[in-house]
Amino acid sequence: MAKGKIVVITGLPGVGKSTVLSELEKLAKQAGKRVQIVNFGTIMLEFAKKKNKDLIRDEIRLKPVSFQHKLQANAASTIAKMARAGAALIVDTHMMIRTDSGYWAGLPIHVLKKLQPDFFVLIEASPEEILNRRTSDKTRVRDKIKMEDVMEEIMVSRAFASACGVLTGVPFKIIMNPTGKQDEAAEEIVKLL
Amino acid sequence: MAKGKIVVITGLPGVGKSTVLSELEKLAKQAGKRVQIVNFGTIMLEFAKKKNKDLIRDEIRLKPVSFQHKLQANAASTIAKMARAGAALIVDTHMMIRTDSGYWAGLPIHVLKKLQPDFFVLIEASPEEILNRRTSDKTRVRDKIKMEDVMEEIMVSRAFASACGVLTGVPFKIIMNPTGKQDEAAEEIVKLL
Amino acid sequence: MAKGKIVVITGLPGVGKSTVLSELEKLAKQAGKRVQIVNFGTIMLEFAKKKNKDLIRDEIRLKPVSFQHKLQANAASTIAKMARAGAALIVDTHMMIRTDSGYWAGLPIHVLKKLQPDFFVLIEASPEEILNRRTSDKTRVRDKIKMEDVMEEIMVSRAFASACGVLTGVPFKIIMNPTGKQDEAAEEIVKLL
Repeated sequence: MAKGKIVVITGLPGVGKSTVLSELEKLAKQAGKRVQIVNFGTIMLEFAKKKNKDLIRDEIRLKPVSFQHKLQANAASTIAKMARAGAALIVDTHMMIRTDSGYWAGLPIHVLKKLQPDFFVLIEASPEEILNRRTSDKTRVRDKIKMEDVMEEIMVSRAFASACGVLTGVPFKIIMNPTGKQDEAAEEIVKLL
Repeated sequence: MAKGKIVVITGLPGVGKSTVLSELEKLAKQAGKRVQIVNFGTIMLEFAKKKNKDLIRDEIRLKPVSFQHKLQANAASTIAKMARAGAALIVDTHMMIRTDSGYWAGLPIHVLKKLQPDFFVLIEASPEEILNRRTSDKTRVRDKIKMEDVMEEIMVSRAFASACGVLTGVPFKIIMNPTGKQDEAAEEIVKLL
Repeated sequence: MAKGKIVVITGLPGVGKSTVLSELEKLAKQAGKRVQIVNFGTIMLEFAKKKNKDLIRDEIRLKPVSFQHKLQANAASTIAKMARAGAALIVDTHMMIRTDSGYWAGLPIHVLKKLQPDFFVLIEASPEEILNRRTSDKTRVRDKIKMEDVMEEIMVSRAFASACGVLTGVPFKIIMNPTGKQDEAAEEIVKLL
């Protein structure tokens, strides 16, 4: 059986990634395409649990880098194995994570080597929309973030994506997700499958 | 015989790369410098032809990634071999290629390893000039592209160049090519040889 | 003894890196933290001297790339060895160096592999402040540089940092250093130690 395509979907907090992903699931089903969405962070947390480390998501980045890298490597291998079983995989993750200690690559080279993705997607929205969604989103702990910071984050995540592009030789696509247009954003991703 | 320098010249569609390259050829001849300009894409197409795949340039990016990477690797090895023969080589290629599936690195890591370039050049022009040249240029199929898209492409190609810089330890130079100043742009490249 | 943390501190000319570093030394001493600041370029020059090449700093970039890479590799190994001895090391260096031949990575992949840093810091300031400091700073030879050039340099150094982030899996933090606020900038670095 041929290896299934691995499409990595990333997006800053506030771009509306979850909305696009659930729209994508609906569209793929309508089109009769078999896709499976896996959340990279969830797989990392499950592996941590097996190692008797019960973490919540935001705690991962506070752990020693070597431990984080082990979780990442395990998640990447697990997903690559699922793809070899033939399914088209949508990997829900981050291109870049902002914490107090700075900008972290969500897809560092050791993950890229194991994951071997076929496409990267950066879901984006205007800085205004990102900011609005962040302020009204109470589900995760966030600092007050200003417009300039959001523009910096967009720039930096594109630079991370560019490094991933040079390291893998596969493309990354920027897909805009303006409010209410998640169906069009999802449609663009379906075309990549 | 010493290995010839390999200078990689890149530029987005519409920056006037071809004009600079023909000016560069003239200047180098006047200065008595032996340079040879090779087009990376042409070498890829010749290799595809040998494999009984007769392609036009814009079709390469629609082929499976593994096939594209094989063409790239072959072109890079061919050019590296020419340089070992002593000639200073100007490699005419792209830092980044924009297609429907996103932004592709023109110089992914597997190409960099084989090519071992000495310098990268990004030829640039103002977004306005790029846009003007693209709209009046009928020789290649292009979508209508807006100013913001062009600015995004400039940003992304610089980020790709930065990744190439970290991966090779050699510099990249941004050279502006305003309309009518191709002689000055070419002169800057001659200085690198 | 545990390996000491390696924090790489970088900044464009004119961001006030030296001021922040001496403030940092003071703060760390007050907090009773043992830190050692090493200058990457100085270690490179010392090694060049041992090889009977007496250079001034700005001459390094005019030497053959293979020689530069040897100096870099040696400096990185020396620093990594110091860290294994247990000290927390602040490495004073550049993310990016601008010369006539273009933008060079201060931390190319072969340096990253030997150095194995734990954090990167980009000290930044507004383009206006950078420009003001550069014009009044007579201690090093510099070209007249315009505002747009400074903005380009900031963008490019962030892209270099992003590539370093993907290649190492450790974070980089942008720390602003507005005039007179070097104590706050230094305080942010102390938190990383």
